[in-house]
Amino acid sequence: MTNETFTAQAGPRAEGTAPTVGVGMLGYAFMGKAHSNAYKKIPYLMYPPVAIPRLVAVCGRSQAPTVEAMQRYGYDTCYTDWHKMLDDDRIQLFDNGTPPDAHADPCIAAAQAGKHVFCEKPLARNGDEARHMRDELARSGVKNMVAFNYRFVPAVRQMRDIIRSGALGQLYHFRASYLQEWIMPHYHTPMIWRLEKERAGNGVVGCLGSHIIDLGRFLMGEIKSVAALTRTFITERPKADGSGMGKVDVDDAFASAVEFENGAIGTIEATRFGAGHKNDQVVEVNGEKGSLRFRLERLNEFEAYWVDEQPRETQGWHTVLVTEGYHPWMANWWPHGHIIGWEHTFVHELNHFLDCIVNDKDVAPDGATFEDGYRACVICDAILESAASRRHVDLQY
Amino acid sequence: MTNETFTAQAGPRAEGTAPTVGVGMLGYAFMGKAHSNAYKKIPYLMYPPVAIPRLVAVCGRSQAPTVEAMQRYGYDTCYTDWHKMLDDDRIQLFDNGTPPDAHADPCIAAAQAGKHVFCEKPLARNGDEARHMRDELARSGVKNMVAFNYRFVPAVRQMRDIIRSGALGQLYHFRASYLQEWIMPHYHTPMIWRLEKERAGNGVVGCLGSHIIDLGRFLMGEIKSVAALTRTFITERPKADGSGMGKVDVDDAFASAVEFENGAIGTIEATRFGAGHKNDQVVEVNGEKGSLRFRLERLNEFEAYWVDEQPRETQGWHTVLVTEGYHPWMANWWPHGHIIGWEHTFVHELNHFLDCIVNDKDVAPDGATFEDGYRACVICDAILESAASRRHVDLQY
Amino acid sequence: MTNETFTAQAGPRAEGTAPTVGVGMLGYAFMGKAHSNAYKKIPYLMYPPVAIPRLVAVCGRSQAPTVEAMQRYGYDTCYTDWHKMLDDDRIQLFDNGTPPDAHADPCIAAAQAGKHVFCEKPLARNGDEARHMRDELARSGVKNMVAFNYRFVPAVRQMRDIIRSGALGQLYHFRASYLQEWIMPHYHTPMIWRLEKERAGNGVVGCLGSHIIDLGRFLMGEIKSVAALTRTFITERPKADGSGMGKVDVDDAFASAVEFENGAIGTIEATRFGAGHKNDQVVEVNGEKGSLRFRLERLNEFEAYWVDEQPRETQGWHTVLVTEGYHPWMANWWPHGHIIGWEHTFVHELNHFLDCIVNDKDVAPDGATFEDGYRACVICDAILESAASRRHVDLQY
Amino acid sequence: MTNETFTAQAGPRAEGTAPTVGVGMLGYAFMGKAHSNAYKKIPYLMYPPVAIPRLVAVCGRSQAPTVEAMQRYGYDTCYTDWHKMLDDDRIQLFDNGTPPDAHADPCIAAAQAGKHVFCEKPLARNGDEARHMRDELARSGVKNMVAFNYRFVPAVRQMRDIIRSGALGQLYHFRASYLQEWIMPHYHTPMIWRLEKERAGNGVVGCLGSHIIDLGRFLMGEIKSVAALTRTFITERPKADGSGMGKVDVDDAFASAVEFENGAIGTIEATRFGAGHKNDQVVEVNGEKGSLRFRLERLNEFEAYWVDEQPRETQGWHTVLVTEGYHPWMANWWPHGHIIGWEHTFVHELNHFLDCIVNDKDVAPDGATFEDGYRACVICDAILESAASRRHVDLQY
Repeated sequence: MTNETFTAQAGPRAEGTAPTVGVGMLGYAFMGKAHSNAYKKIPYLMYPPVAIPRLVAVCGRSQAPTVEAMQRYGYDTCYTDWHKMLDDDRIQLFDNGTPPDAHADPCIAAAQAGKHVFCEKPLARNGDEARHMRDELARSGVKNMVAFNYRFVPAVRQMRDIIRSGALGQLYHFRASYLQEWIMPHYHTPMIWRLEKERAGNGVVGCLGSHIIDLGRFLMGEIKSVAALTRTFITERPKADGSGMGKVDVDDAFASAVEFENGAIGTIEATRFGAGHKNDQVVEVNGEKGSLRFRLERLNEFEAYWVDEQPRETQGWHTVLVTEGYHPWMANWWPHGHIIGWEHTFVHELNHFLDCIVNDKDVAPDGATFEDGYRACVICDAILESAASRRHVDLQY
Repeated sequence: MTNETFTAQAGPRAEGTAPTVGVGMLGYAFMGKAHSNAYKKIPYLMYPPVAIPRLVAVCGRSQAPTVEAMQRYGYDTCYTDWHKMLDDDRIQLFDNGTPPDAHADPCIAAAQAGKHVFCEKPLARNGDEARHMRDELARSGVKNMVAFNYRFVPAVRQMRDIIRSGALGQLYHFRASYLQEWIMPHYHTPMIWRLEKERAGNGVVGCLGSHIIDLGRFLMGEIKSVAALTRTFITERPKADGSGMGKVDVDDAFASAVEFENGAIGTIEATRFGAGHKNDQVVEVNGEKGSLRFRLERLNEFEAYWVDEQPRETQGWHTVLVTEGYHPWMANWWPHGHIIGWEHTFVHELNHFLDCIVNDKDVAPDGATFEDGYRACVICDAILESAASRRHVDLQY
Repeated sequence: MTNETFTAQAGPRAEGTAPTVGVGMLGYAFMGKAHSNAYKKIPYLMYPPVAIPRLVAVCGRSQAPTVEAMQRYGYDTCYTDWHKMLDDDRIQLFDNGTPPDAHADPCIAAAQAGKHVFCEKPLARNGDEARHMRDELARSGVKNMVAFNYRFVPAVRQMRDIIRSGALGQLYHFRASYLQEWIMPHYHTPMIWRLEKERAGNGVVGCLGSHIIDLGRFLMGEIKSVAALTRTFITERPKADGSGMGKVDVDDAFASAVEFENGAIGTIEATRFGAGHKNDQVVEVNGEKGSLRFRLERLNEFEAYWVDEQPRETQGWHTVLVTEGYHPWMANWWPHGHIIGWEHTFVHELNHFLDCIVNDKDVAPDGATFEDGYRACVICDAILESAASRRHVDLQY
Repeated sequence: MTNETFTAQAGPRAEGTAPTVGVGMLGYAFMGKAHSNAYKKIPYLMYPPVAIPRLVAVCGRSQAPTVEAMQRYGYDTCYTDWHKMLDDDRIQLFDNGTPPDAHADPCIAAAQAGKHVFCEKPLARNGDEARHMRDELARSGVKNMVAFNYRFVPAVRQMRDIIRSGALGQLYHFRASYLQEWIMPHYHTPMIWRLEKERAGNGVVGCLGSHIIDLGRFLMGEIKSVAALTRTFITERPKADGSGMGKVDVDDAFASAVEFENGAIGTIEATRFGAGHKNDQVVEVNGEKGSLRFRLERLNEFEAYWVDEQPRETQGWHTVLVTEGYHPWMANWWPHGHIIGWEHTFVHELNHFLDCIVNDKDVAPDGATFEDGYRACVICDAILESAASRRHVDLQY
């Protein structure tokens, strides 16, 4: 070896510098892509890495697309039966990126097999199912985490850290909406699993609502009660296989008034019938000393207002471009002003889980645990119950 | 007279060109200023005028400030007893700009004296009081109107006209918030009439909420039910006269989920504890074919989205600068891009009422009648009842 | 007189409380309307008034519309020959709202007749004409002011006051554009006086450019040199009287790089071919300690950035809603969050001139004098010269 | 092999499915990170891939950080002498991510060694050096590309495609600024290569200006002349090694008026003294039929205005969220509303170059060639010449 050429000795990276964690991924579609991408980026962007995820195996029900996913993302192996994947000793982290009806059994089995479990949200189809998962995971002793990835948006984390520091003083209001549009009539969306109660548990309440419910708990604290309305605007849709019409038995939209244990009140709303809103999550907190506001479609920014700002002549809402090295995680990325994307929330999130695994840290309170996933499910249930009973519903865990 | 000099023959304007309507104004503070300003601008800005308001008299309880208001705004006369003002035959239009506890008696007496009645919002302290006013006014046969001036923001009226044309198709969602901050702790606001149930009827529900409730009815149609929460964050405040603490017996904030008779659902919320929100009313409608959104602090704009827009490559939310001659009322003002202010909503509103008076037109549906004022009060009552009973409340008129 | 009725003794307002200033208005179109409206609002909105403008006479070339303007705005008299109006002893303030070719003679004659002179911008068709006006006005000893009304936008004045306090430190950059669109092809605009050199002096350079040139001087200090390009995109337009095509002999657009005496550099640009820009003036200043930015279509706001802001986690551009009582002039208007309009800049501006007249104050530096009007004309000339000579042009006054 | 387990046969991805292109990367800092990240993402995100980049070697001057970069990004080998790297037969694509003074020799040598060349911008320190590079590369016959990555922002490409289709009609204006702040006094930035003429060629003109100059050519066509001013606000800075002060011999800022061959005029400006502007590139085009506007700090959006939009009541500027599958490249990423980041421009850009290499396609006009890089350098020279000579400078290539 001369001083001009240095061939890597131990493969493409010095894997000895950080512990390796073998990953088994269940699902290869939307979330499979997002999670796989994150695992691939962690080693060189969360640098120096706390752990090196090794893409051991991906599992899906159909052989051809699973093989393709394996090759596309660089997994060593693939499976079409998740039980088999759980037998693979190279796997320490089981990542469940499937719909809610495939969460409970694989997650519990993985935990019982001693694998740490990362599960997509909502954790389960309802509070009872989620409680069972939480209890079984607790019993197993493995690390567990639910993919409420918006906790890992730098702007959101910055807001949480500000609130937690007490800088907003007493909290008065939470105002959150998560609006999408892709099942509106002009999309001609057929029956899909997200519109079936058997598979999804419920509709937009769990799919979009659970995200802002979790942010409500993350930013404000526990929710005390909900008063809600739901709607299903299109009750029949053509089945994807052409075999006639299917019944939509979940909600397309909900609106709710909520109260928090700290005395604050607010609104939480989600819909897939919000024309013009592509992935429009907006979250605002009003406190005694200031306000904070976030919008997902501009995820590199948040807005802040301080009641005691000086000079008063320029007091106003700050549009904060969250790209400084002192903003959460941003020192890992690019010089300020060079924005990151939605996919990078998963990089931060899964890196946190890896850190918890290899360094035996607590997933909470920065990350969402199965306990958080369970509570979100209970709140989703309460929203549906309030809409059905036409009464305010107090939350009990 | 030479051809170079033409002295006005009949005073500063040719009053014969449009009928004159004598105005008697009760109250000279915030709303008295706003209404007086509007009357003064109508003759030369809503041009040619449908009617010329003549500022006959202003009435207030205290002599000195009432005299000052008379002189400041150019009223011919002033009174300190409204009964006396109602005897003044020069007055055809009685304008009530007082707090809610001084609405019912003067308005009813004015109507019985044959004067057309314009009353500030909320119409009354509660639905019962408002119903009585509505019934008495109906009996009298005079024109009546409630000052829901935001119907007369050009952007709001444009949105209403679009919705009414059917261009949005089926309506799915209404989302409205009206946020202010001026009674937050750092303002050290003392007890004022707006915080007393006896005078105001309720708190932010009627003061700010009634505006967006009326816009909900104006844009969407009737509300069917509400589920609400309220809060009073500061329950004691120093009396303005220094005689110790007073009890705040109204709401500081409310949050509600509402359903409309057309099947839409939404949220309506108002607070005076929204740090950073000065006069921040936001209203959004989502329909089958598009969405519309308005924000009062940028009242010369609204945003629009069309689901079928072409070319699709530039589909997005339009920020519409509502200053074109074809936008409602704007031909009366300035060339496009030259914005108007909050005060001008009253010019449009009172000009509408004058037009109804002199041309015997219906105040509704463009303007709000006492029937509209009554319904807003009933909905305010229902919000308070839902918060108290912790149940969804169906509306009944 | 009882204690319930107080009839105004001396007409609609107590005119004795403030000195009256008789106004003679030349022109009744766009600017005549804007100025007349301002005179009418001053007595009750800039309260208590420093002076009461009395609308003595309006003058126009055609009898019928001049009579109509007299009646519409409430002038006592009207004239069709401005020489006659200058003989009217009731007039102390001569307001010239005509095109540039009618600025010099009437303004000079009015000054020689001892009347204070307020003149629309640009002051003249070129620097030589403006210098002559400035010199003659100086000789006369009357007050003089040029209608650079954007100095009287509360946001702009606030920015000027901040800069003048030294809070921005050394100034590095000025960036201004004034974009309109109303002579683009799809408007089918015929030949009008604004497109004729004989009447307007030049095109967009003087009409729009002079406004931002004045703001450059107001905010930054003197301009040292310019390097510019101009364009006339449509060189022939149909004459308004149908008698064939007319030649456009002025510029439709210009772009320039400018340097200031304080060492800063920047760009100044204006066009009437800026599709989508209705009245879009944008002005930005970058300094050592912060930046300020203003946009006319949202004239109730400006944006501010401070380099040393704490906490750094929420550092960003502030969107300042300029409606607080401590913002310039705003205590005269409405509670915060209730925005004002474009017309109100004239209220502030003419009130300043009235104050200067009755209290013998200096128009400068807050208002623009004929000296400022002259310098703006010299800079406009330099822009045209640079475009023609293709060289940087140093300014000399 | 059972039907439940499929082990990848040929490594982590099926490399046979697309041709492999060996990459040799010169430089491992900011641009090395950005390019390496892009190469790693291409295979699974630009899917199915047109080519599989193989990270063969990275080269840097210092051994330790080069080894670290090799391990971090997964290069097979590293070098500290670029001549050696050019001998490596596994490399087909030479990627030069170094400062301008290290562009010419390595790029020319690489081309002469038969390697396709991708070079960071600005292509060279001045037009002469760039012309030499262009000529040598042309002689070699290899593919060449300059890293004007903002052509590969989906929003920018969408704008270019719209303009190129003729949808804007005649073009009137181009307005571009690229503002940063990181060498302002409060940053205490020492002497760095970007401030040395010997290494960088010039200052902000080439570093930031060349990007918007290239976008001007990309969107509008060729530039005909420039009239410019430059400034160096801080002329001495402490050397990074503590050995006293160094002389800044490049520009900190420039402002220019430009004309295009198509008759349009505009402004182009860049600075590193724009307080509050982190990476704020703004580009706007005004045409006969509409306008388009882009801002880099919100790179997932652009704004569009159409002069003939219907219905006229909602005409306005569209804020386009560029995340639909029909927007350029976006089908490769996530569902609409899920935004991408700055890094992804390099994924699109380098994928284009790989496509050109393996499928023998032309880099232009979608990508920037050495010809484009050369022209940008000539324009940079002209800006400096105009500022020095104080004359308009015509461009000649």
